[in-house]
Amino acid sequence: MRLTEEPGTALLPSGFIDLLQHEAEAEARGIEAVMDVFAGHGYERVRPPLLEFETSLLHGAGQALEEQTFRLMDPESRRMMALRPDMTTQIARIAATRLAGSPRPLRLSYAGSCILVGTQGRETERQISQAGIELIGIDSIEADTEIVLIAAEALRTLGIESFSFDLSCPALVQGLVDLSGYTGARRAQLVHALDRKDMAAVAELGGPVAAILTALVEACGPADTALPILEGLSLPPRIREIADRLIAVVRALGDRDPSLRLTVDPVEFRGWQYHTGVCMTVFAVGQREELGRGGRYLAQGDEPACGLTFRPEILLRAARPITLKPRVYIAAEVADAAGPARLRRDGYATVAGLAPVDDLAAEARRLKCRFVFVADELITL
Amino acid sequence: MRLTEEPGTALLPSGFIDLLQHEAEAEARGIEAVMDVFAGHGYERVRPPLLEFETSLLHGAGQALEEQTFRLMDPESRRMMALRPDMTTQIARIAATRLAGSPRPLRLSYAGSCILVGTQGRETERQISQAGIELIGIDSIEADTEIVLIAAEALRTLGIESFSFDLSCPALVQGLVDLSGYTGARRAQLVHALDRKDMAAVAELGGPVAAILTALVEACGPADTALPILEGLSLPPRIREIADRLIAVVRALGDRDPSLRLTVDPVEFRGWQYHTGVCMTVFAVGQREELGRGGRYLAQGDEPACGLTFRPEILLRAARPITLKPRVYIAAEVADAAGPARLRRDGYATVAGLAPVDDLAAEARRLKCRFVFVADELITL
Repeated sequence: MRLTEEPGTALLPSGFIDLLQHEAEAEARGIEAVMDVFAGHGYERVRPPLLEFETSLLHGAGQALEEQTFRLMDPESRRMMALRPDMTTQIARIAATRLAGSPRPLRLSYAGSCILVGTQGRETERQISQAGIELIGIDSIEADTEIVLIAAEALRTLGIESFSFDLSCPALVQGLVDLSGYTGARRAQLVHALDRKDMAAVAELGGPVAAILTALVEACGPADTALPILEGLSLPPRIREIADRLIAVVRALGDRDPSLRLTVDPVEFRGWQYHTGVCMTVFAVGQREELGRGGRYLAQGDEPACGLTFRPEILLRAARPITLKPRVYIAAEVADAAGPARLRRDGYATVAGLAPVDDLAAEARRLKCRFVFVADELITL
Repeated sequence: MRLTEEPGTALLPSGFIDLLQHEAEAEARGIEAVMDVFAGHGYERVRPPLLEFETSLLHGAGQALEEQTFRLMDPESRRMMALRPDMTTQIARIAATRLAGSPRPLRLSYAGSCILVGTQGRETERQISQAGIELIGIDSIEADTEIVLIAAEALRTLGIESFSFDLSCPALVQGLVDLSGYTGARRAQLVHALDRKDMAAVAELGGPVAAILTALVEACGPADTALPILEGLSLPPRIREIADRLIAVVRALGDRDPSLRLTVDPVEFRGWQYHTGVCMTVFAVGQREELGRGGRYLAQGDEPACGLTFRPEILLRAARPITLKPRVYIAAEVADAAGPARLRRDGYATVAGLAPVDDLAAEARRLKCRFVFVADELITL
């Protein structure tokens, strides 16, 4: 899909692509289908701009994406603007400013494109789509659960039936590593071992928390086996509290929808820079890329919030293929517009013949039409 | 709608706004409704990226927008990239490269955001939406007509009934001014007089073409009165040919849809930088801003093309207001998800109560719900 892969065509910068016909239609329809599910649960759409002043975009949680952000000088104000690498910060800004007076919990949804600087030498997408929800102003098991259940409904709406939610709580590992008392290189080694789930290294480097950390690594896996291990662990009180919240959310999800495939990863912490509670990653079974991710965090003014963002272009690789309108070639001789209008109402795409042709069927086929409309009659080719 | 207008809120750069709830939903639905009309006529959607290399974006017709274009350095290629100020150039690039082998006429549609540098000291939108169509590879009266008729259908789909198309042909005036033989300041004065439709000045400055030009100014107005004047004028052969095409397109439109409100402005030429044939501007009756504009031009490789671009945010000011899903507050006690799911299928938005409350009705109203669902019953407030 990258122009650079095709010889003889104009170049696009790496990570930027054209979506053509079927792909572009599928993306637009997929996003609107997901947004409609969100709207069905009372999430109201907001549409922040593609760029803002860097000071507001890279504020708070936005700082994590500072190196991924393109900047531009605003000739008007002489201040730096930034192209958004993510929409979550913008939603938090809107919730804390223009919608500060709106009743809580505030349910907002959004869809749009983001631009990333990219990582040197790596072939990554630099324009990505996002479609997500934020539930702002409440911190509860029910709120965390709602986000996951709505995400599951959105996936099913797209025809994605085999998916799993991986639930974690970065604060759990971070809290334990803090308890180890290690700093600097020693701490980094421990974190690295946890990240690789290298049990031997964790046991060796973990010091006072080595036993708990290795036990937590054992608790990674399907919810059915992971939760009893996590429940049975002897944990320091603050860590216990965090673990209990994770357990409660996973149990509530299982109760609300027993068909959900849930895995628990209590040592997962990478890539979660500002999250404070339960986090979730969604995968399509058999696909490595994340369909979406989300979790609990503190929005502006320390307002509790939980949200989830889908990556529509990745969703669509797992989604049911879309059906395009069947194309009907309208013979140029057709003078009455009523016939074609009726066909359009019935869901066809009418492709007007702009000049008479000798072979209607051949011309229709050339223009990718499966039908011809002539003399008030629809002919299947 | 501008954050800068509200005290105590975060600032957005001038010309960039947040669309909130109702507005954001209306924009998204309006764009999809228009795109669906385009799809109904066989226009296939493409989605080029928000930015490209400056060399490809500002190629050909794109040069006209050079001063309105933000640039960014691509750290990967060390080349300059540009944020698109318009999508037409991108569609032309796609048609000439990746879709060079697709059958003609090629019908493409697009919708997306564009970013403009803006004009110093003037309060203009700097992030605009576009939704449009391009009919590529054919130069005919029927092709020009198709573009206008589809645009009219899109407007009616949005509930906009009172609109008019202003048809012009910049090449007509440009050809006549060329015939005057004037250059430099004299030519600029004449062009300025034409632009203001200052008949006295046109008569004084027009020299050999003064009579024709003043006659053309007379031919501005509703198609019924303008066409006979335009037909009766004695014009040099090349100019006659251009005028005849304009006349033929306007007549064809009147034949195809007698209810269309058509005006003709044969001296219009401003703001049309790369158009070579009939051009059209769409207005809602009683509104000064253009809903959209388009016309005939030469795409890459001098391939004939005709297109039209709507400005969705302006369209929506004239469109039928949208109806949001009616909101139902779901009492926290409701354990069975089937009831709320049924309501969503019926078009309601279900707003989950996340904890029991004493006064269901008050809580529902606080959350902007007109209904409460409790004990399997839908209660109207």
